[in-house]
Amino acid sequence: MSPRINFARGVPAEAAFPRDQIALCAQALSRSNDPAAFQYGPASGPVRLREWVAGHHDVDTAEVMVGNGSVALFDLLCRTWLEHGRLKPGQPVLVEAPCYDRVLHLLRSHGAHVIPVPVDADGPDIAAIEAGCAGRPALFYCVPDFQNPSGAVYPAEKRHAVIALARAHGFTIIEDSPYRLLRYEGAAEPSFLELAPDVTIQLNSFSKLISPGLRAAYLIAPAPIVAQVARFAEQTYVTPGNFALSLAAEWLHRGHLEPQIAHLRRLYGPRLRSMLAALDSFLPGQRFLRPEGGFFVGLTLSEPVDADLLLAEAGRAGVDLADGSGFFIERPATPFLRLPFGSMDEAIARRGVGILAEVLGRLGTAGRNP
Amino acid sequence: MSPRINFARGVPAEAAFPRDQIALCAQALSRSNDPAAFQYGPASGPVRLREWVAGHHDVDTAEVMVGNGSVALFDLLCRTWLEHGRLKPGQPVLVEAPCYDRVLHLLRSHGAHVIPVPVDADGPDIAAIEAGCAGRPALFYCVPDFQNPSGAVYPAEKRHAVIALARAHGFTIIEDSPYRLLRYEGAAEPSFLELAPDVTIQLNSFSKLISPGLRAAYLIAPAPIVAQVARFAEQTYVTPGNFALSLAAEWLHRGHLEPQIAHLRRLYGPRLRSMLAALDSFLPGQRFLRPEGGFFVGLTLSEPVDADLLLAEAGRAGVDLADGSGFFIERPATPFLRLPFGSMDEAIARRGVGILAEVLGRLGTAGRNP
Repeated sequence: MSPRINFARGVPAEAAFPRDQIALCAQALSRSNDPAAFQYGPASGPVRLREWVAGHHDVDTAEVMVGNGSVALFDLLCRTWLEHGRLKPGQPVLVEAPCYDRVLHLLRSHGAHVIPVPVDADGPDIAAIEAGCAGRPALFYCVPDFQNPSGAVYPAEKRHAVIALARAHGFTIIEDSPYRLLRYEGAAEPSFLELAPDVTIQLNSFSKLISPGLRAAYLIAPAPIVAQVARFAEQTYVTPGNFALSLAAEWLHRGHLEPQIAHLRRLYGPRLRSMLAALDSFLPGQRFLRPEGGFFVGLTLSEPVDADLLLAEAGRAGVDLADGSGFFIERPATPFLRLPFGSMDEAIARRGVGILAEVLGRLGTAGRNP
Repeated sequence: MSPRINFARGVPAEAAFPRDQIALCAQALSRSNDPAAFQYGPASGPVRLREWVAGHHDVDTAEVMVGNGSVALFDLLCRTWLEHGRLKPGQPVLVEAPCYDRVLHLLRSHGAHVIPVPVDADGPDIAAIEAGCAGRPALFYCVPDFQNPSGAVYPAEKRHAVIALARAHGFTIIEDSPYRLLRYEGAAEPSFLELAPDVTIQLNSFSKLISPGLRAAYLIAPAPIVAQVARFAEQTYVTPGNFALSLAAEWLHRGHLEPQIAHLRRLYGPRLRSMLAALDSFLPGQRFLRPEGGFFVGLTLSEPVDADLLLAEAGRAGVDLADGSGFFIERPATPFLRLPFGSMDEAIARRGVGILAEVLGRLGTAGRNP
């Protein structure tokens, strides 16, 4: 029996983790005089990691908070804003459609009124953002580089349009940027943080660059917001994961990031190209993005099909899929599939796409001929 | 100029941290085939740590969730119960007076109606719990072993009385137990978890036993509650600090806990005895507990004095004190001082108590003669 093919979760490859480097960094921390790794410390996290992040993004250390994963930092930001009335229960917030499912759930659990902004290969639908501005939204949560789940990248003109609307209507752009450095081809657009720090809060993470197990993530925001969120965090978790965050700081200060990114490009680039080739071969009639980086290719079926039946049939055939409707506020007209390509080798992913095509054929939606 | 004497924060001694052992554990994790340390995983935390905790407390692994510090786990429990209606905004909750200040803040931020239960050398005031039961409290948060901030330990008969009330009135005992194993003299009473797992949820932590930097903590509760909290956590932080939690698991499985506790007893025991001797010499007229373990001696001034003035004067004399009123819902009649003794050597703590006595003398409250 062949092993199951897991398209359900977008995790890094095991081969991505710099295990030996982390062990050496732990040894260095154990011998260091810096108490930050082992002791309680400021809720904004070890200053050594904050300083590295500040240098990397050319911002002030006071504009950086580090913590236990970027979703947790966003949760803290939302709770802080709810406490300070900057986010009110029932207030509109703009999200991408499709949207990273955990964030969608998080915003709803905080009572936000979530308004979808369709995102496609061309980036976000600017008219939808404009229409959403009537309700005075607090924020627009977006992943402008290799979006989770679609793989979309915002073109430059769309970035400028979003910024203009943010400035005109007073909402904050929450730029979640964990995949930005994982570009296997082409050139990057400037980030929202680079273009418009006045209206941007960036969430970022080393989960895809070092290891999710460290939960090393950060938030870049104006210093008073960082101070507010840190005060809230102090009453919530006292101190973030100082040991793991100090490990990340040590690893970064040793200069491992650049060679690691080169390693990840060599690892993931061929997997992305192979995934796109498999989609071209097996599912030429379906609509999918052609990202130049990240972890995901989003695919929208060209014809309606029962999504639950599709998941069940694919599962029976040995391919696990995520429930694509979790990425939307309302179930889309035709199912959306997120295909992660990072954690499995090319042959397995190709076989998975082949099986998926077979299942779709049986369900009568092999796709329109292009 | 002598260095400042910090009675403001109760952190472990630097000499307490098993730095080399942690580095060796990190090396072992980097060579292990277990993906738990580096990868995403279940929101309930690495199973290896959950299994160790389950074995240690003789409970089922399904009754254990591990996470990033016990305050964060309590925050998750509160949020989960708020979502499921088991804790309602405005519902009474019972807390100790004095109470661990971060938890007091946390419960209030969740909208709970906080009812104080006076705790003294004899443990909690059972009549106050009984009176508080009229409002149908959801829970009683307590630190029954070497309480933070007073150092109090609940005698056996008080434990049984609390359990009887919990069973009669349907509230949950939240037993926060981070200092229990740090007993330098005498014998322990059974824990609430041991006596009454049907009405107890235990919070616990390795912050005082290994290092706060690992944020290795756990919650023991009936399996359906653990499953609910883990589901909530998954949408909030995806995965806890798997690397640091796996380090703790490796360290525990290597059998380091018992010799570490012996080491900590040798380190902290003399500091506790010296602190009590200094209080006997310098402040014989004040009321303080005589704990046999933990991190703190709580002291209640025998006469009223302006607490802000006391903090300011002590600070000017080189001694930093925590604002004792932070441990209470209402400012107590006479100031309460939390004196941590763990992180400084005997001579410094003794000098600190001497300075404090001098300052109190100047403020006209050296204490009644006993």
